[in-house]
Amino acid sequence: MGSVDQVPVVLVGATGYTGVEALRLLHAHPGVRLAGLCADRRAGQPLADHLPAWTDIPLPPVERFDADAVAASGAIAMLAVPHGTAQTTTAELLARGVRVIDLSADHRFDDPAVYAAVYAPHQHPESLKHTVYGLPELHRASIREARLVGVPGCYPTAVTLAALPAVRAGLLAEGEAVLADCKSGVTGAGRSPGPGNIFGETSEGFRAYKTLAHRHAPEMARNLGGRTVHFVPHLVPMNRGILATVYLRLAPGVDAARVRDAYATAYADEPFVSVLPDGAHPDTRNVRGTNRCHVGLFVADRLLCVQSAIDNLGKGAAGQAVQCLNLMAGRPETEGLTQAALFP
Amino acid sequence: MGSVDQVPVVLVGATGYTGVEALRLLHAHPGVRLAGLCADRRAGQPLADHLPAWTDIPLPPVERFDADAVAASGAIAMLAVPHGTAQTTTAELLARGVRVIDLSADHRFDDPAVYAAVYAPHQHPESLKHTVYGLPELHRASIREARLVGVPGCYPTAVTLAALPAVRAGLLAEGEAVLADCKSGVTGAGRSPGPGNIFGETSEGFRAYKTLAHRHAPEMARNLGGRTVHFVPHLVPMNRGILATVYLRLAPGVDAARVRDAYATAYADEPFVSVLPDGAHPDTRNVRGTNRCHVGLFVADRLLCVQSAIDNLGKGAAGQAVQCLNLMAGRPETEGLTQAALFP
Amino acid sequence: MGSVDQVPVVLVGATGYTGVEALRLLHAHPGVRLAGLCADRRAGQPLADHLPAWTDIPLPPVERFDADAVAASGAIAMLAVPHGTAQTTTAELLARGVRVIDLSADHRFDDPAVYAAVYAPHQHPESLKHTVYGLPELHRASIREARLVGVPGCYPTAVTLAALPAVRAGLLAEGEAVLADCKSGVTGAGRSPGPGNIFGETSEGFRAYKTLAHRHAPEMARNLGGRTVHFVPHLVPMNRGILATVYLRLAPGVDAARVRDAYATAYADEPFVSVLPDGAHPDTRNVRGTNRCHVGLFVADRLLCVQSAIDNLGKGAAGQAVQCLNLMAGRPETEGLTQAALFP
Amino acid sequence: MGSVDQVPVVLVGATGYTGVEALRLLHAHPGVRLAGLCADRRAGQPLADHLPAWTDIPLPPVERFDADAVAASGAIAMLAVPHGTAQTTTAELLARGVRVIDLSADHRFDDPAVYAAVYAPHQHPESLKHTVYGLPELHRASIREARLVGVPGCYPTAVTLAALPAVRAGLLAEGEAVLADCKSGVTGAGRSPGPGNIFGETSEGFRAYKTLAHRHAPEMARNLGGRTVHFVPHLVPMNRGILATVYLRLAPGVDAARVRDAYATAYADEPFVSVLPDGAHPDTRNVRGTNRCHVGLFVADRLLCVQSAIDNLGKGAAGQAVQCLNLMAGRPETEGLTQAALFP
Repeated sequence: MGSVDQVPVVLVGATGYTGVEALRLLHAHPGVRLAGLCADRRAGQPLADHLPAWTDIPLPPVERFDADAVAASGAIAMLAVPHGTAQTTTAELLARGVRVIDLSADHRFDDPAVYAAVYAPHQHPESLKHTVYGLPELHRASIREARLVGVPGCYPTAVTLAALPAVRAGLLAEGEAVLADCKSGVTGAGRSPGPGNIFGETSEGFRAYKTLAHRHAPEMARNLGGRTVHFVPHLVPMNRGILATVYLRLAPGVDAARVRDAYATAYADEPFVSVLPDGAHPDTRNVRGTNRCHVGLFVADRLLCVQSAIDNLGKGAAGQAVQCLNLMAGRPETEGLTQAALFP
Repeated sequence: MGSVDQVPVVLVGATGYTGVEALRLLHAHPGVRLAGLCADRRAGQPLADHLPAWTDIPLPPVERFDADAVAASGAIAMLAVPHGTAQTTTAELLARGVRVIDLSADHRFDDPAVYAAVYAPHQHPESLKHTVYGLPELHRASIREARLVGVPGCYPTAVTLAALPAVRAGLLAEGEAVLADCKSGVTGAGRSPGPGNIFGETSEGFRAYKTLAHRHAPEMARNLGGRTVHFVPHLVPMNRGILATVYLRLAPGVDAARVRDAYATAYADEPFVSVLPDGAHPDTRNVRGTNRCHVGLFVADRLLCVQSAIDNLGKGAAGQAVQCLNLMAGRPETEGLTQAALFP
Repeated sequence: MGSVDQVPVVLVGATGYTGVEALRLLHAHPGVRLAGLCADRRAGQPLADHLPAWTDIPLPPVERFDADAVAASGAIAMLAVPHGTAQTTTAELLARGVRVIDLSADHRFDDPAVYAAVYAPHQHPESLKHTVYGLPELHRASIREARLVGVPGCYPTAVTLAALPAVRAGLLAEGEAVLADCKSGVTGAGRSPGPGNIFGETSEGFRAYKTLAHRHAPEMARNLGGRTVHFVPHLVPMNRGILATVYLRLAPGVDAARVRDAYATAYADEPFVSVLPDGAHPDTRNVRGTNRCHVGLFVADRLLCVQSAIDNLGKGAAGQAVQCLNLMAGRPETEGLTQAALFP
Repeated sequence: MGSVDQVPVVLVGATGYTGVEALRLLHAHPGVRLAGLCADRRAGQPLADHLPAWTDIPLPPVERFDADAVAASGAIAMLAVPHGTAQTTTAELLARGVRVIDLSADHRFDDPAVYAAVYAPHQHPESLKHTVYGLPELHRASIREARLVGVPGCYPTAVTLAALPAVRAGLLAEGEAVLADCKSGVTGAGRSPGPGNIFGETSEGFRAYKTLAHRHAPEMARNLGGRTVHFVPHLVPMNRGILATVYLRLAPGVDAARVRDAYATAYADEPFVSVLPDGAHPDTRNVRGTNRCHVGLFVADRLLCVQSAIDNLGKGAAGQAVQCLNLMAGRPETEGLTQAALFP
């Protein structure tokens, strides 16, 4: 029932939390026509069979992925499949001229050597020549023209938005590392059942994991001009949200006013990033279900503590993918992303 | 920035959970222009000061309620103020020809004696001559023409949608009571801090309250043709959602097939009520943030167990109010209410 | 470090939630000496490797189960292994003269035909001749002498304690079924990760499961003198606790005072069952981590609504097992079970 | 029913979460006789009226506080009353020769000027001459002899136990600040209902509060030899637990092995502090309901990340108070505190 000027989009992968959130956003997007829905393991079944929230909501049939069919549809492809898998899918689509937005980790680096060091040797390194890192606040112009967008990781999104204005404005002491103490809801651990996401071992408790050894740190470091990033993620007993508490050492003479000015300037025209007033603390509940990022600034002596809150499935994944889609398709950047948080 | 054919709406009360949810829905509604936002205690302050989720989202200024101003705006008024207060506000608006959708309990009965018996003497009984009970599945045609709509209680909505088809189709044994064992999220207890909604005494525990003594029972009984309703509400450690587990005694000879047929027929054309397939259990998470109601049917011997799931702030309050608004304004009934649940 | 007069106990199975709770209670029990700890898959590893809560707490080594070794130790065996497995383990132990407390479903019925109908054919039906149903409020004297105790299911414990005094005192209408609407925390679904217990699909939502088709119903019916029991279990987003809301039709002429009198009498000498005062609602949080059961009574017309709250891992499993152990070993019945709930 | 050699203890304040936890621990303590229970607002009422978890558990009557009566009882007094109030209560008791364990903030500093700077002018500065800071890992010998013990704050306990071995062993770079990113369950916000602890605004979200401006920072700094402490507390949607993630800059040449050695040595004889093996992450759920502290060590380059997990109501308050009580009374230090965590 799309109108003529809607953008056709095929969603590949609709069983994980990220894929379902992408579906939710695409379905509600007034400028998008959902041209196809692929999920190999669920092909031929009504989506509502395993996702009853979609009962009686009209959707295209769930089909097996077929690169030729996607190409024939003229659609942009949005991939919400596991990393590794996304490499092959992407290569097949690029070869057929389809533009791709990949939510996995597979196309976040353009250097195959870096990818290999962080993950594993890339099966289609030639794709990386085309990839653009899908953080509009960094690469808006390139995303508009991109054949392939690698949507950033959830943690790197939160940390980069928290730290980048200070880095760019030259507020930080020379050679000091960025310290990112981050906290994520349980959906960050994915939908496959395991000890890391069962209720009895995630609710009513709090812990860190992969301390100083998580694969998102190199992505953050790259985004922040090569600074060392010490990254410690924690697991919060809630479904959605990331709060990044980022500690930065200020250069001599930099005071709170100058910090605030740098952030206000950096984000003055950003539709999804809000710098909160003095003393206000970002809270993940205030961005839940949205593509927004709230930033809070705190200075004491020469320490700058920046806090940023996003929805890990929103601005940290599917929301950001839709923002990139809007740019690639020449739509208003905020289209389909203007809703307020579900509260509470 | 509304277009010419949008419906102007003034929202009165935007600090409680119901009001904020109404604001969220109205703000996202493509056919509505938010013509005013009234909250006496917060007048003159940016809404984001106490609701930071609304930071940088354009809204009308928060003003004190002024019935003349509302009348001058030509808007429909949606009231999310406490019961008692709503009586006066409504009377002032009706007197000026403003159509009113009241989310409080004040206009759910058209008989002042009944209202007085359940709540307290009504201050403006003359308003009750105009009120229509805002359950579209019951009173769609009257709602279209109504000057005043009393939006149903959250529990009565869930229980009525669960039981009404069986009552209407004559499936139930004579003289048997309806037994409604209901479970609600904590937002049902409102936003004013108290022992009933603090984290330490609502999370990690489960209890009933007001057993067989809750004021929603008479509303249910009225909706179900005067049958006795035994109603026991429980408090679930979650934010949103009601599950009603309703037990009904079937008349001799009524079997599962006939039950299913009655429900399928009753809800065939209802855009927001889905009868789930055999064996499927409604889950509040599948309707969270929506105006939908999922219904499950289970029969054993002569017992019919119907389960219905709604969002208490959605179909149980603000979503239903918007559905009524659509009807009153001659808009498509589902406009602004087509989104899928936030999952998870 | 046990003293001479402590009871030696071997715990078989210490990886599931029930087994860990049994370990917690036995470890803290002043009258018990933990003589052995068996867990085949974890044998040879320190328990703290997979249960870090036990770091630096002295325990016997984890060993493979060996019936001869248990017999040689002179201990009572407490089994927290899956049903099915428990049949063989029990038979081996009984053959060696070891007294057994089985937490699984395998020895809750003394009739092999009933067991087969509810579960599957029993592999050691001869064991059933010796089994005593481990609900002290029903079978205290027999438990003292038992060679084998089958610890009741969690739901049957809650429902039986709620309904039995009314049944026994003849308060109920003839031929009327018992209706048990029950709500359990997520640990009731066990510790093996699956869609039924992952955080994203159990938190922030509420649903029933196995409506009118759960295997605990026949156990309840047997306990309640053969009355029909309609049983609907629900899943609460919390770790521990069961609230049973039980609906009973009173015989003509039975009023609230007579009901209260019957319950007060039935439980006057029961150390773990408390009948709450008029109007008070049992709450699972008030019995968390304990062997207690709180009972609330509500009467309207001829309907009796009894609510009982237990900890599904406490009075619903491991606590009850320890209560039986105390009886079998001639210890004070409340020994090791006197603590108050963890609040909150 | 206490035996002759039990220590008599009077608990003053039993309505807040800390007081109730103290009651739970004292009640279960085999070496303590609860000689009195004072709560002015609840005097004369059964405790179970507002704390139904205590239904049918024998306790002394709740009385108004009377310093003479406490003195006459020969008991040690444990105070769980608000700070400010505790100053007067303590002074009255000290004047009568009663030994006092104060859970409030009132006697954590021995310098009135420091107390005044952090809180407000002290009403009884003469008491501070007698106070001993109740962290046994720091002041065990003095606590044994103390007339007055000021139980440490929950955050300072977690941070001090995490950082002190590194400070004492001289592992840290000169002049570098300690950075303490801490996360606490909601009971840390107390039991008085308010926006900071209602379910709808604490569950399903995560935020910091009082960033770099919390009153516990000076207490930490004092404990750590006057080092600057940058302290950022966060609120976790769970009831109990603190995880402190503490970042420390190592002196040149200090490697992971030397760090581990220092911590192993420092805590070798500490009954309640466990240093977890390499790679293991402390989790608050593993210490819930206990007096234990789990410590994890992570080193990368010259950054040391120490994580410590405690129960804020246990080792962070009431558990620590009982540990001090044991020392003051000449009891085994671990008596009444040996239980394992409630899991889950």
